[in-house]
Amino acid sequence: ATAFRASEHQHIRYNPLQDEWVLVSAHRMKRPWQGQVEPSLLKTVPRHDPHNPLCPGATRANGEVNPHYDGTFLFDNDFPALQPDAPNPGPSDHPLFQAEAARGVCKVMCFHPWSDVTLPLMSVPEIRAVVDAWASVIEELGAQYPWVQIFENKGAMMGCSNPHPHCQVWASSFLPDVAQREERSQQAYQSQHGEPLLMEYGRQELLRKERLVLTSEHWLVLVPFWAVWPFQTLLLPRRHVRRLPELTSAERDDLASIMKKLLTKYDNLFETSFPYSMGWHGAPTGSEAGANWDHWQLHAHYYPPLLRSATVRKFMVGYEMLAQAQRDLTPEQAAERLRALPEVHYSLGQK
Amino acid sequence: ATAFRASEHQHIRYNPLQDEWVLVSAHRMKRPWQGQVEPSLLKTVPRHDPHNPLCPGATRANGEVNPHYDGTFLFDNDFPALQPDAPNPGPSDHPLFQAEAARGVCKVMCFHPWSDVTLPLMSVPEIRAVVDAWASVIEELGAQYPWVQIFENKGAMMGCSNPHPHCQVWASSFLPDVAQREERSQQAYQSQHGEPLLMEYGRQELLRKERLVLTSEHWLVLVPFWAVWPFQTLLLPRRHVRRLPELTSAERDDLASIMKKLLTKYDNLFETSFPYSMGWHGAPTGSEAGANWDHWQLHAHYYPPLLRSATVRKFMVGYEMLAQAQRDLTPEQAAERLRALPEVHYSLGQK
Ligand SMILES: O=P(O)(O)O[C@H]1O[C@H](CO)[C@@H](O)[C@H](O)[C@H]1O
Ligand SMILES: O=P(O)(O)O[C@H]1O[C@H](CO)[C@@H](O)[C@H](O)[C@H]1O
Repeated sequence: ATAFRASEHQHIRYNPLQDEWVLVSAHRMKRPWQGQVEPSLLKTVPRHDPHNPLCPGATRANGEVNPHYDGTFLFDNDFPALQPDAPNPGPSDHPLFQAEAARGVCKVMCFHPWSDVTLPLMSVPEIRAVVDAWASVIEELGAQYPWVQIFENKGAMMGCSNPHPHCQVWASSFLPDVAQREERSQQAYQSQHGEPLLMEYGRQELLRKERLVLTSEHWLVLVPFWAVWPFQTLLLPRRHVRRLPELTSAERDDLASIMKKLLTKYDNLFETSFPYSMGWHGAPTGSEAGANWDHWQLHAHYYPPLLRSATVRKFMVGYEMLAQAQRDLTPEQAAERLRALPEVHYSLGQK
Repeated sequence: ATAFRASEHQHIRYNPLQDEWVLVSAHRMKRPWQGQVEPSLLKTVPRHDPHNPLCPGATRANGEVNPHYDGTFLFDNDFPALQPDAPNPGPSDHPLFQAEAARGVCKVMCFHPWSDVTLPLMSVPEIRAVVDAWASVIEELGAQYPWVQIFENKGAMMGCSNPHPHCQVWASSFLPDVAQREERSQQAYQSQHGEPLLMEYGRQELLRKERLVLTSEHWLVLVPFWAVWPFQTLLLPRRHVRRLPELTSAERDDLASIMKKLLTKYDNLFETSFPYSMGWHGAPTGSEAGANWDHWQLHAHYYPPLLRSATVRKFMVGYEMLAQAQRDLTPEQAAERLRALPEVHYSLGQK
């Protein structure tokens, strides 16, 4: 019988954090691609555009004028998917027709006053300011809401409608679906094994090494064993940390530095401003924040769509939507490629 | 207090079939869109292209020559994600690193010899031939495999890499993730309520009417209460049918006719060849096919991405990937728009 090799033989892998399976068919990288290629990325974003509602001094859709901010800048989304005061849909009349109340707020956070930079092109102290702003907004909105989702859609391919470097923060009165799944899995793991799932997972990856991308004094970046997106990564603190605001000053500086390295590698992979959606997950907040959430470990997910080049992406379509996620290279191959990339941004040229 | 109105007030809805929640924020349709627009669709596909591996008489990647078929045509995918003979990855050494064997086959089914047609432009008897071919392939591959996933990716936006009208069939040795979720939900509903979830659901929608798009003697098309994609629909037989091959001849004719109507409405919505991924779900097959699967009801899901126009889609990105699906118009609004559209294809002009 042929010996199993992950890079040659399809198999399925289990995601214990979100209770999902992925089909890994690495041999499929060999097929030719004749489908849609993405439009080339906008190359010339002006540093300042008075008509861009995210720029310092610009007027937004609601008539408010942005301050001449020179660091990060947080403001209310002018077209929020969650508002603080929606009425309750009332009791459901049938188990197949269940609706519930949803309240919340949506904010936008600009990372920098300039439109023509991205996180990997910002300095470590500038990224550290973003980390601090993230911690503050979790603290501020987490006082009221059980879940505060920080996420960044980067690049037009990921539905980002404004090139100015920014992320979004959506706080909700309910635990969203993915948060519920991570809560269930981490809770179950803790009660079965007596320690947080992601603490043991990080430790194992440090031993096994083949999926590590970057390590630092306080952080790990790895391609998870169950990654779905071609170059998906998981960013984890080494220490047991439940939420962003708990990070020490040293951990925050180190986070800024490892993020800059990771995002530089991403940009270097296809020599493009690498698109992705990313977001932070930590223990629930709100009125139950004081409960025991020790099974939670803070982490960030990066979900980048590109597969073969700056213009050829992985499509999560028919089989993936109807049956199961499928990937075309192994997580180990992805990690190896990311590891090998330089930590100096390609646009800065050779030293 | 303000009275709740689904079209004005955000709320969350539960998908009892797949055990998921969706955030419905209909007021959000008001926001302007300045993000990515999709490239216009290819307008001129030649009826026959000898270099297109899906055309009659063409040579495929593996050197085989297609017959001069004049109906449907089924053949092995030359770059399959599932192969029949992959070795087993062996036992896992840790609960966080679980891999399992995956075996299967991937086939491609051409719907028609011409490249310049799509299902809504085919005749009802031609579509009926597709239905029969679907039933046969379920029977053929279902003899060996527990799950046979028929799916169509239509349009470059949905990762379709060949304009010739076709679908794919991936049969696997395992129950894929989504199938497992639907199995659990339907099983639980049956044991609690004594009837199949989707039978009761179809009956309720016939009474409530507001989400119906089309009805016929044997079929229903509706926008499910928990729809995620803007114009998502669910296609259901009225009778309790577990798998495609069980459909009677009258039910197959009627299916061909209602599919033609639905897909014509889809094309008419934005006067474009409407992109989507669709697929069939029925009771598991393979060696366990003889077990009791009465909790299953055959159905097809249509997942179309377009939101506002032929070039502006809904992006399922940051919040959706990290937290929960979110939609910008209510399922009732979507159903109303689809209902109002003509059943004659826009490209055929006025009668
Ligand atoms: O039609 P293709 O080229 O085989 O592939 C397409 O559908 C597959 C199944 O949904 C996806 O895995 C691919 O990403 C997509 O491009
Ligand atoms: O950045 P925007 O325009 O608010 O919106 C973008 O991110 C949202 C949250 O992931 C998605 O719901 C939208 O579909 C996407 O276009």
